[in-house]
Amino acid sequence: MHDVHREITRWLEPLGATVRVDAVGNLRALYRASETPASRLLIGSHLDTVPNAGAFDGILGVMLAIACLEALEGKRLPYAIEVVGFSEEEGVRFGIPFIGSRALVGSVDDNLLNAEDAYGVSVRKAIQDFGLDPNEIGQAAFDPETRAYLEFHIEQGPVLEKLGLPLAAVERIAGQSRWEVTFLGRSNHAGTTPMNLRLDAIAAAAEWITLVEHVANTTPGLVATVGSVETKPGATNVIAREARVSLDVRHPDDRDRNRAVESLVEQAKQVAERRGLEVRPRERLSQAAVAMHSFLTSRIEEALRQTGCASHRMVSGAGHDAMILAGKIPSAMIFLRTPGGISHDPAESVAVEDVAKAIECGAHLLGQLASVPTFHSRMCRA
Amino acid sequence: MHDVHREITRWLEPLGATVRVDAVGNLRALYRASETPASRLLIGSHLDTVPNAGAFDGILGVMLAIACLEALEGKRLPYAIEVVGFSEEEGVRFGIPFIGSRALVGSVDDNLLNAEDAYGVSVRKAIQDFGLDPNEIGQAAFDPETRAYLEFHIEQGPVLEKLGLPLAAVERIAGQSRWEVTFLGRSNHAGTTPMNLRLDAIAAAAEWITLVEHVANTTPGLVATVGSVETKPGATNVIAREARVSLDVRHPDDRDRNRAVESLVEQAKQVAERRGLEVRPRERLSQAAVAMHSFLTSRIEEALRQTGCASHRMVSGAGHDAMILAGKIPSAMIFLRTPGGISHDPAESVAVEDVAKAIECGAHLLGQLASVPTFHSRMCRA
Repeated sequence: MHDVHREITRWLEPLGATVRVDAVGNLRALYRASETPASRLLIGSHLDTVPNAGAFDGILGVMLAIACLEALEGKRLPYAIEVVGFSEEEGVRFGIPFIGSRALVGSVDDNLLNAEDAYGVSVRKAIQDFGLDPNEIGQAAFDPETRAYLEFHIEQGPVLEKLGLPLAAVERIAGQSRWEVTFLGRSNHAGTTPMNLRLDAIAAAAEWITLVEHVANTTPGLVATVGSVETKPGATNVIAREARVSLDVRHPDDRDRNRAVESLVEQAKQVAERRGLEVRPRERLSQAAVAMHSFLTSRIEEALRQTGCASHRMVSGAGHDAMILAGKIPSAMIFLRTPGGISHDPAESVAVEDVAKAIECGAHLLGQLASVPTFHSRMCRA
Repeated sequence: MHDVHREITRWLEPLGATVRVDAVGNLRALYRASETPASRLLIGSHLDTVPNAGAFDGILGVMLAIACLEALEGKRLPYAIEVVGFSEEEGVRFGIPFIGSRALVGSVDDNLLNAEDAYGVSVRKAIQDFGLDPNEIGQAAFDPETRAYLEFHIEQGPVLEKLGLPLAAVERIAGQSRWEVTFLGRSNHAGTTPMNLRLDAIAAAAEWITLVEHVANTTPGLVATVGSVETKPGATNVIAREARVSLDVRHPDDRDRNRAVESLVEQAKQVAERRGLEVRPRERLSQAAVAMHSFLTSRIEEALRQTGCASHRMVSGAGHDAMILAGKIPSAMIFLRTPGGISHDPAESVAVEDVAKAIECGAHLLGQLASVPTFHSRMCRA
């Protein structure tokens, strides 16, 4: 990540931006306004992604923010632009997503800083090891003059491709729950322990995973995923005493999501109880569905039309840093078509023409906001 | 393991034994006979165990071999005794068990030496890293004058405890199959990929694991275990593209075991096919059931009676180095009662009184063999 920050800084500084890395590891580049004091527009996305992922999730949004600055060709606008490359959006290392964007809205607390990765390294320690000071995270908060947040992101789903559209405005981000469910049985010898005397954590986890899939298959609008199973001791000839299973549940409607999660946790308890095992379900994230800002979204629709694209609104099934920022700042997103809907995989891709349209759309949007004299006050009122 | 070898050597040398470590990492201690040339009796077990195991699996058998030497109080017998502390019996690191004992019977081939652990380190490289020369493995073969192999081991099951017996002679070791079954799907975003468009490797593996348990529950005499699940990429918010699952199947009857394995592999293929996934089933071990040597076993029964114990014969559900050696050398085993049948777990234990009886039984057995003039020839004929 140090290399990434260095490289991106090499691109941003010649455009006239001042670059720093805040205490949570976000890259922050300020492109000043034509005059001061000035309000500020954030444009950004995340720089991390999942293991063995593609090249576009997150990082393309940061590249498009830089391209928007580049398209200004040195021209200053009546508002400043801050490009943000967020850290730790995915939650791979600590099981907690959006750490970078949480720092901007002031919700990185001691609980979060004390959370540990699989090797027992805390978030706090990881920040120190990276060369930053966790005591300075308060200074990562967004500037009080910030009026809006804009994020470009690949759709990571099949919708735009099916509609034949390159871009869309996001009107809503589906809520998501993340849990870690640990089944605890008893280790024993695989050759000498009769089937009826086993307390097999993997067998219990497997039964529950089939139930998770069944519930998702039979609940309209719900997606539920077990993306990780960790087994202990994890030897061929030993009955597992522990199976730690991740759960990711999403639905556009928060009530439906919460109902599904409750039911799945209850089923985990029933599976464990029937088998004489213990189960420890732990919530890692409960993120409500979030609406994007209506004025900004209508401006994006206008910019889409100026770019020659159909103006289309859609729901995002994926979570984004914009979910976090929307709690404090008017936020909006622009999605790019994702071929095959494939993301979080090396086959992830985008079409060059779609990226060109996204840059053009961004330029139109920046121009519109510059020509709206009530930009600041409208944002604040909303 | 270097520390273990050093410590055990410190105990063996004062008893009059000459200690070396062979090229596959087995500790070999020779206690010479009253005269030369002499035939040789091997007594041993393994020094490795599984992760987070107990203190007795394997190592107690090596300790009892040393205790048998100690009980001789320096007296030399008409045959030499070689104490062996085998390496890599469990197969945890490379998925291949019995590497140490295979070297004694000459079945460590290039295939085995090229097998790799989870970090891509080959058996050959691991041997070199330990400070040994894999080209010298041929010299680890058992001495041609070796007439028998004896192994003490905890039962690792509940049978002797239920019968109220401290010790038993093993008459047969159940056969075992070990497989690695890898389900291959496609990674994708957990939030944006509809349930019906997923190729989820974990969901497929979970379905199959429930089938493995069902087959074992409904097939008399069969035990089948999935002891390890490894998922890739293994992130909460990513559909898994790979789930690598271990399978351990055992049955006293080889035909029943092979039938069950065939059926389970076929079911893995069906699960994968129905879901549009690929599956790669790989056999890691197929070990036929092995009978222990009848003359030696009858001598153990006699030694049990001399010790004041009931003479009892039983089948071992666990595999042991004795399975490997029995292919080339008359072999026998003595089991010690395992409280609660708990093994491969920190709660694994033995009763001090049972260990004392095992030492006494071993001493009687050594004495008997010394007094059987036809010991050598009888062993060879069998």
